[in-house]
Amino acid sequence: MKVAIIFGSKSDTDKMKGAANALSEFGIEYKAYVLSAHRVPEKLSEVINELEKKDFECIIAGAGLAAHLPGVIASQTTLPVIGVPINAAVDGLDALLSIVQMPKSIPVATVGINNSYNAGMLAVEMLALKYPEIKEKLIKFRKDMKEKFIKDNEEGVEF
Amino acid sequence: MKVAIIFGSKSDTDKMKGAANALSEFGIEYKAYVLSAHRVPEKLSEVINELEKKDFECIIAGAGLAAHLPGVIASQTTLPVIGVPINAAVDGLDALLSIVQMPKSIPVATVGINNSYNAGMLAVEMLALKYPEIKEKLIKFRKDMKEKFIKDNEEGVEF
Amino acid sequence: MKVAIIFGSKSDTDKMKGAANALSEFGIEYKAYVLSAHRVPEKLSEVINELEKKDFECIIAGAGLAAHLPGVIASQTTLPVIGVPINAAVDGLDALLSIVQMPKSIPVATVGINNSYNAGMLAVEMLALKYPEIKEKLIKFRKDMKEKFIKDNEEGVEF
Amino acid sequence: MKVAIIFGSKSDTDKMKGAANALSEFGIEYKAYVLSAHRVPEKLSEVINELEKKDFECIIAGAGLAAHLPGVIASQTTLPVIGVPINAAVDGLDALLSIVQMPKSIPVATVGINNSYNAGMLAVEMLALKYPEIKEKLIKFRKDMKEKFIKDNEEGVEF
Amino acid sequence: MKVAIIFGSKSDTDKMKGAANALSEFGIEYKAYVLSAHRVPEKLSEVINELEKKDFECIIAGAGLAAHLPGVIASQTTLPVIGVPINAAVDGLDALLSIVQMPKSIPVATVGINNSYNAGMLAVEMLALKYPEIKEKLIKFRKDMKEKFIKDNEEGVEF
Amino acid sequence: MKVAIIFGSKSDTDKMKGAANALSEFGIEYKAYVLSAHRVPEKLSEVINELEKKDFECIIAGAGLAAHLPGVIASQTTLPVIGVPINAAVDGLDALLSIVQMPKSIPVATVGINNSYNAGMLAVEMLALKYPEIKEKLIKFRKDMKEKFIKDNEEGVEF
Amino acid sequence: MKVAIIFGSKSDTDKMKGAANALSEFGIEYKAYVLSAHRVPEKLSEVINELEKKDFECIIAGAGLAAHLPGVIASQTTLPVIGVPINAAVDGLDALLSIVQMPKSIPVATVGINNSYNAGMLAVEMLALKYPEIKEKLIKFRKDMKEKFIKDNEEGVEF
Amino acid sequence: MKVAIIFGSKSDTDKMKGAANALSEFGIEYKAYVLSAHRVPEKLSEVINELEKKDFECIIAGAGLAAHLPGVIASQTTLPVIGVPINAAVDGLDALLSIVQMPKSIPVATVGINNSYNAGMLAVEMLALKYPEIKEKLIKFRKDMKEKFIKDNEEGVEF
Repeated sequence: MKVAIIFGSKSDTDKMKGAANALSEFGIEYKAYVLSAHRVPEKLSEVINELEKKDFECIIAGAGLAAHLPGVIASQTTLPVIGVPINAAVDGLDALLSIVQMPKSIPVATVGINNSYNAGMLAVEMLALKYPEIKEKLIKFRKDMKEKFIKDNEEGVEF
Repeated sequence: MKVAIIFGSKSDTDKMKGAANALSEFGIEYKAYVLSAHRVPEKLSEVINELEKKDFECIIAGAGLAAHLPGVIASQTTLPVIGVPINAAVDGLDALLSIVQMPKSIPVATVGINNSYNAGMLAVEMLALKYPEIKEKLIKFRKDMKEKFIKDNEEGVEF
Repeated sequence: MKVAIIFGSKSDTDKMKGAANALSEFGIEYKAYVLSAHRVPEKLSEVINELEKKDFECIIAGAGLAAHLPGVIASQTTLPVIGVPINAAVDGLDALLSIVQMPKSIPVATVGINNSYNAGMLAVEMLALKYPEIKEKLIKFRKDMKEKFIKDNEEGVEF
Repeated sequence: MKVAIIFGSKSDTDKMKGAANALSEFGIEYKAYVLSAHRVPEKLSEVINELEKKDFECIIAGAGLAAHLPGVIASQTTLPVIGVPINAAVDGLDALLSIVQMPKSIPVATVGINNSYNAGMLAVEMLALKYPEIKEKLIKFRKDMKEKFIKDNEEGVEF
Repeated sequence: MKVAIIFGSKSDTDKMKGAANALSEFGIEYKAYVLSAHRVPEKLSEVINELEKKDFECIIAGAGLAAHLPGVIASQTTLPVIGVPINAAVDGLDALLSIVQMPKSIPVATVGINNSYNAGMLAVEMLALKYPEIKEKLIKFRKDMKEKFIKDNEEGVEF
Repeated sequence: MKVAIIFGSKSDTDKMKGAANALSEFGIEYKAYVLSAHRVPEKLSEVINELEKKDFECIIAGAGLAAHLPGVIASQTTLPVIGVPINAAVDGLDALLSIVQMPKSIPVATVGINNSYNAGMLAVEMLALKYPEIKEKLIKFRKDMKEKFIKDNEEGVEF
Repeated sequence: MKVAIIFGSKSDTDKMKGAANALSEFGIEYKAYVLSAHRVPEKLSEVINELEKKDFECIIAGAGLAAHLPGVIASQTTLPVIGVPINAAVDGLDALLSIVQMPKSIPVATVGINNSYNAGMLAVEMLALKYPEIKEKLIKFRKDMKEKFIKDNEEGVEF
Repeated sequence: MKVAIIFGSKSDTDKMKGAANALSEFGIEYKAYVLSAHRVPEKLSEVINELEKKDFECIIAGAGLAAHLPGVIASQTTLPVIGVPINAAVDGLDALLSIVQMPKSIPVATVGINNSYNAGMLAVEMLALKYPEIKEKLIKFRKDMKEKFIKDNEEGVEF
């Protein structure tokens, strides 16, 4: 049970860290790759082809601008691909549209702009379908989240 | 192995049919519900609570305008929720943003505007993680799609 | 005569303070709740159900991103709900569209992006319909505002 | 208990009819005025000044393009003003922004693009604060709406 | 030969200074008024009514958000009104659309976002139609501008 | 007293007719030119250079897409240039931004998308500064417009 | 001297015909391929690899939605790639941003939305750098275009 | 073999430096001109007319706001013109649309917002069609880029 996290530049490491954090909270193994759909397309294909053989079950891909990376990956695998639009221009709307508007048959599961944490959570939800221990943790996570939220805010708030 | 397809009005049946079509191609059972996050919130909660007990494993939700349905569902289940933005105004950008921009921890796997077929395909990909027969069909589907595409276009095109 | 102010995170306290300020100027009691439509939907429903019993007459709800909170509240109460779009991404346009584009029958009275003060003022105007003392104060407020504006600017301005 | 419905051109009558329909369902009296903030500003002021004397308690104003009408009315009354953005260009986004982005102190309660029905419903909710018979009808309306929705959709839907 | 410069808040003085600067370069008298279409509509009408009697020939009006000021002025005068959209939210697009999308018969001559200098220049061009001395200065201004531009850049530029 | 109306293609004649109509109502002579900033730049320059010699006092220019025509004209004349954004793509927002966002010193007086009538009216207002007979007609036009508006709408409107 | 025209679906043939038309006017040979970056990525790579060997010198690629095709081609060739955004949703803004916002080092020469004719013309201009006979034809084309434009419009236009 | 880099103000030198950098990497001579389509149109025409005589083969033009410069240049030359939208307002969307949406027959090869480096690379690709030594360097550049990318990222990345 492993998740691949792929993005196009080391400089995006901080923006993609949320995905790793979410996976870590659930004890899910992940590996991060810096790979670009435009600069090293052959290397990218090579890595995609190996992912499944190495027991990766889900791919998270983050990209900005003309964010082709998630869609290009999706076209070369049958694993579910989760896309994270990174804000590098026009408030990230270019990346959002470049990721979400995929043609018929090759979907990318898109999350919010810069919201790599939710990409990790979505991977968790997918894996929970198959792995009962993840499902259990997910149920507990939600329960804890609710309790913590209520506890943190029970005294109300003063302006 | 069942998928729930939920949307807010019978009038959107045609726009959501793509999801059913994709699932049918893979022999995946689905059930469609017309339910509104705003008009019948209690009934919606009731249905969501039963889905998992009834062995549904994935939820596809389509909505237009202030498209809260997918997010509201996601907040009440740990099953993965796939959101389809339906174009009812401003080219569907309101629905897209209302669905994809979910807060930390509660993701919705968003697909393209009016692209319910891809929501079905994304559900297929998720179920393929767990069910080898779906995985097999998905690999074949992609292979067939490629062959058909190449065959259909091999004579080239005349203007 | 009380107004509830609800928002999803303590970190938005400053952005929602304007609502409290407006209500305070009119001596209207308010109570602030930190509640999330997505993280604690059941707790939110619980609080909404009690508001009317506790004599709240109006609800102000602020949210950013896929800002479902005001609409979700509106779906569970017959009290008027005033929505404040908070800018957390794409200049707040996601929140604005997620709040204002409600479906038929369940309106949210939407004010400007980050303009929680106007949400407070709108609550004042609604309460002024019923409470003559608020109406009187509102008339005086407007008169004072005009006089102050004119006085402050009567010497003109130098570039 | 009366509501004024104001808009700038007879040609918008159909688009504003929803407001009248909503009010009619609740037996609330209304009167429609065709008045333009730009073409007959003095006449508009004259009418606004009389509305309160004639026991109007709420004003619904619809406008397209540079939709100043709701804001101009709001600046001349202390009654709550509900604004309906009408789509006459750029998908109605010009009207939405022209109505909702009001400056501090002079709010307009904005509803969705072309959604005059919700403007009527918002007026109903405001009046329900004061008039117990409207409150009662509103509670019944919501209950009926839910029952009807559930009944209409209980057989599910076939693709 | 005088130009009125009107805007809604002393805090916009810096953003409107460009208009004054342009007029000063041509020796055109101007007077600045801080007046709000929403806060002091009657006072605004009063001032507008006097402008023509006091020999003002053109009005420059700057506003942000739901920028009604230029349009409201235009509806109460036959003098040409030049509108300056001020960026206070959503990159100034709300102000631009609120100013430029005026209904048939009541135009506002709109210039670029935050470009009050061009509002001044447009006033100069209008006055140059009537006043030969302004026309002469305008021709010289353009000639000087060109010569200065060419001189400033004739050595080219090094990266 | 003449106004030039310039646009880039005979196919836009209908969209620009409003300008001619407005000018005709005031008895102002106009001449229409089909000229393109991109296809015949030298011919355009030639015509611009002659306009002033031929006693034109104002130029109305309409264009769609990358609507350079009004700005290119403005750069070659000191006459006021009024720009009409024509909707040929993306709801006319490309034309609006291409026309209104002119750099410092070379303004284009921009009117609403497809609103050539208002371009004509703006020309009328500019000429009214200089020609008392136009001023008189303009005052009468406004007065008549108001009276007609009030008369047309005095019986109110039925839904 | 050959140009490849690539697009993702036979149904876009009409929208891409403009490119062929422009090339035909200059007697430039072209070949059209229907190929999809997402559906047949390997076949696409295969074709791209052969293009240069077959003496193609320029590639025109048209795509809608998440329009990855031009960028994916650009990443696998050193030939200049011209991208045509096709309007299939949100007025073609998704395709425009997906094509033009390429990362550093891998440009796509983007033309206007649905403007495949200009893609053809841009290919002509590039080839004219190398082939004097194309240069000559291009100069003549422009000269003819100007003459025709002037002739077609010399009688002016009547409203 | 020379490339002209033209932009409207010395203050944009830094934003256009990327074009010079890209050309320098390939040993391509360039010359930068500060010229404005609106302030010095005649001087601009003069320079454009000389470029070809001086053996320039490609023109890169950068502009912000109503970014007419690239299109105006394109209308006066048959050399390929590459346009760089510079972000000076509304996230650079005004410049992008003003540059890319050129009318039929006069294309501008548009690159990403603020991406002058890619403008330089596109010029390199065009010149590589004609000059084998540039083609060779371009192939090496891509190869080196890939190797460097892979080497820089081969140890993977730690969060």
